[in-house]
Amino acid sequence: MIKIINDVDKIGFLRELQKRNAEDYNDVYEVVDKIIEDVRNNKDSAVKKYTLEFDKVSINNIEVTKEEIEEAFNTIDKELLDTIKKSKENIYNFHKRQVNKGFKYKPEGKDIILGQMVNPIDKVGIYVPGGKAAYPSTVLMNAIPAKIAGVNEINMITPPQNDGKIKDSIIVAASLAGVDRIFKVGGAQGVAALAYGTETIPKVYKITGPGNIFVAAAKRKVSGFVGIDMIAGPSEILIIADECANPKYIAADMISQAEHDEMAASILVTESRSLVDKVVKELERQVNLLERKEIIEKSLTNHGAIIVTDSIKECIDIANEIAPEHLELLTVNCFEMYKEIKNAGAIFLGEYSPEPVGDYFAGPNHTLPTSSTAKFSSALCVDDFIKKTSIIYYSKEALNENREDIIRFAENEGLTGHANAVRIREKSI
Amino acid sequence: MIKIINDVDKIGFLRELQKRNAEDYNDVYEVVDKIIEDVRNNKDSAVKKYTLEFDKVSINNIEVTKEEIEEAFNTIDKELLDTIKKSKENIYNFHKRQVNKGFKYKPEGKDIILGQMVNPIDKVGIYVPGGKAAYPSTVLMNAIPAKIAGVNEINMITPPQNDGKIKDSIIVAASLAGVDRIFKVGGAQGVAALAYGTETIPKVYKITGPGNIFVAAAKRKVSGFVGIDMIAGPSEILIIADECANPKYIAADMISQAEHDEMAASILVTESRSLVDKVVKELERQVNLLERKEIIEKSLTNHGAIIVTDSIKECIDIANEIAPEHLELLTVNCFEMYKEIKNAGAIFLGEYSPEPVGDYFAGPNHTLPTSSTAKFSSALCVDDFIKKTSIIYYSKEALNENREDIIRFAENEGLTGHANAVRIREKSI
Repeated sequence: MIKIINDVDKIGFLRELQKRNAEDYNDVYEVVDKIIEDVRNNKDSAVKKYTLEFDKVSINNIEVTKEEIEEAFNTIDKELLDTIKKSKENIYNFHKRQVNKGFKYKPEGKDIILGQMVNPIDKVGIYVPGGKAAYPSTVLMNAIPAKIAGVNEINMITPPQNDGKIKDSIIVAASLAGVDRIFKVGGAQGVAALAYGTETIPKVYKITGPGNIFVAAAKRKVSGFVGIDMIAGPSEILIIADECANPKYIAADMISQAEHDEMAASILVTESRSLVDKVVKELERQVNLLERKEIIEKSLTNHGAIIVTDSIKECIDIANEIAPEHLELLTVNCFEMYKEIKNAGAIFLGEYSPEPVGDYFAGPNHTLPTSSTAKFSSALCVDDFIKKTSIIYYSKEALNENREDIIRFAENEGLTGHANAVRIREKSI
Repeated sequence: MIKIINDVDKIGFLRELQKRNAEDYNDVYEVVDKIIEDVRNNKDSAVKKYTLEFDKVSINNIEVTKEEIEEAFNTIDKELLDTIKKSKENIYNFHKRQVNKGFKYKPEGKDIILGQMVNPIDKVGIYVPGGKAAYPSTVLMNAIPAKIAGVNEINMITPPQNDGKIKDSIIVAASLAGVDRIFKVGGAQGVAALAYGTETIPKVYKITGPGNIFVAAAKRKVSGFVGIDMIAGPSEILIIADECANPKYIAADMISQAEHDEMAASILVTESRSLVDKVVKELERQVNLLERKEIIEKSLTNHGAIIVTDSIKECIDIANEIAPEHLELLTVNCFEMYKEIKNAGAIFLGEYSPEPVGDYFAGPNHTLPTSSTAKFSSALCVDDFIKKTSIIYYSKEALNENREDIIRFAENEGLTGHANAVRIREKSI
């Protein structure tokens, strides 16, 4: 089922892996452009039209009502409610440590004040997929950092089910996490509604959250006019394991990644040749026990791999080169090893920290950079919902003291109007 | 020359102002795509070909040599060198306050470790325009935050002059700011070289810095494969002034913005009707004294405005709605007023802090969000050159304690493989 890769093939595999991300948006841009334009012009009526067309449901009230929220709290499984509350608490506790308060200072002996003022983004929109991928964890991971940042209006959109309703766990998670308003709309039409506003749905300044190719293409299209978070590619896990690692755990963790999506990638990197056979056997055994067997097999066959290396150092180099979304270190010395990792979305240490601990519960954000983008980007965080404004104050004396330098710099750059703005202030002194 | 706007026109003006940003990349994407593909395939030879075509110079050595750096230090005006050093010091002192060290914690009474590890982006590329817009300040504002972040390799590209050289102040600024290598290449070919690498130019993970429409289009095209900073629109200033403000200063500051570019916008917002005439007269007087008169007049006529309001509160509301790149508060109570500003790139307080103080010297970054994007984005900063990795450790006991919640969450989301990855670990306990 899964490829075993020796030294010779390694580079070829890495290249193939990176190609996995090259989704072709060109096919969908044409339809997405049309939808965006229609929603800009016809607002709510366009939103309703596309909801009927794509979600097969005719909605009168786009916004989820108070009564619907109460009903969700009544119908939700009480144990699940309790779980969501615990998870919310953990996510809150982690993200509150990300708060950036800005700074202000007076350089010594000078009548100058400089600073960085932090303000929340005033209005944001959160996209939550519907259907099978309607995940309450997505709600928590997007809304809680926005709430901690102090966002004034958190608007959530999610496509309705065939019965015109939203899954109770989604509504409850939104309500607990501090979402202000929930709207029953998805797809490119939902993204367009948030970017431009309709009679019912407010225009926001930033849109975050995952979605299918139409949602991703729409987010790309409105990007720049409003802010967006990263466009996520297929999910991936890389496991570095030593000979002490339990092959059952390794196989279970690779499978848990593979079940997401046929394009997901599960990769084991190890210098232990004896581990390879055991993991392969466990993969074959466990996959037969699971509901999403077909997806798992396709994912493991097409994008999975076991890479055998000559040294632990090579394992680390491969991890840094792949820059995986999720990295598990199933090694005895994981507490030393993680310090060598430069590129990864999240690192899971030791054999009792499987990825689902982070997906749902531990606290760090599960919105992570995929497809090697961990080389230059990071998990969704509180900083994604704030912005910073610089503060500059010079007194008359301070300007006077530095005016020759500023004028000289401006004139070297050929901007005499800039020089003039400083020079004209001299004359009044 | 400049529009005076009363209440009725305000909204119309704001709409026009926002349209200013709608640059049409579609015209240039075709040629940019071709250049990128060519550089990907033919590397240095393609880079040289386009440098001959666009910059009209045939270069043998793409990389600036040690000898050329020495020569630049020999030829540079000594006063200018001193100014660049002072500016570098100020920029360094401001940006070092932005350093984010990450965190690690153990929730009370639990055998759990959670954290956020900060690492620099390993390799970055900085784009510096050539020709008239070859600004040493651009070099400092991009390279210093990268250096403070701990970036391992800072590569700078900039198009050569007709004589095949780079302006001495650009080389000196790069050298002082910690740029590791300088390459004589600009345009889409330069961006492609940084994104994919050539024999001479290393592939980087993120590209920052301003450029013309070809550079902007190329950055958009490679975005996602590598990281990019914001795509800046035309520059803008908004000045809030009260009746005590000096009309000479206001006019000089509006003109200094207007000289950048015909598309630049200079806006005065005031409730003082008596100020308006005085500013108009000063604009007419000062513009005649300056080199870039033609650009200034076009910019002021087409995109400039004086907006007269009924109250200071309305001035603040308009500023927050426009979300200007640069905001000057020429008001007696500027130290109170700035706290009301939610959306602006940088705020300049009082009559002796004209924008050039920030453009060159004070310390905060001059790469600022334009075209209302200050509603959701910020100045270039140290955070743009780092990335964060989450750390998650659960002991056997910690996993055991929380396993039911994690399994419940996974099963609610229909991901039985995720539940299995937790459940399988139970069996061994």
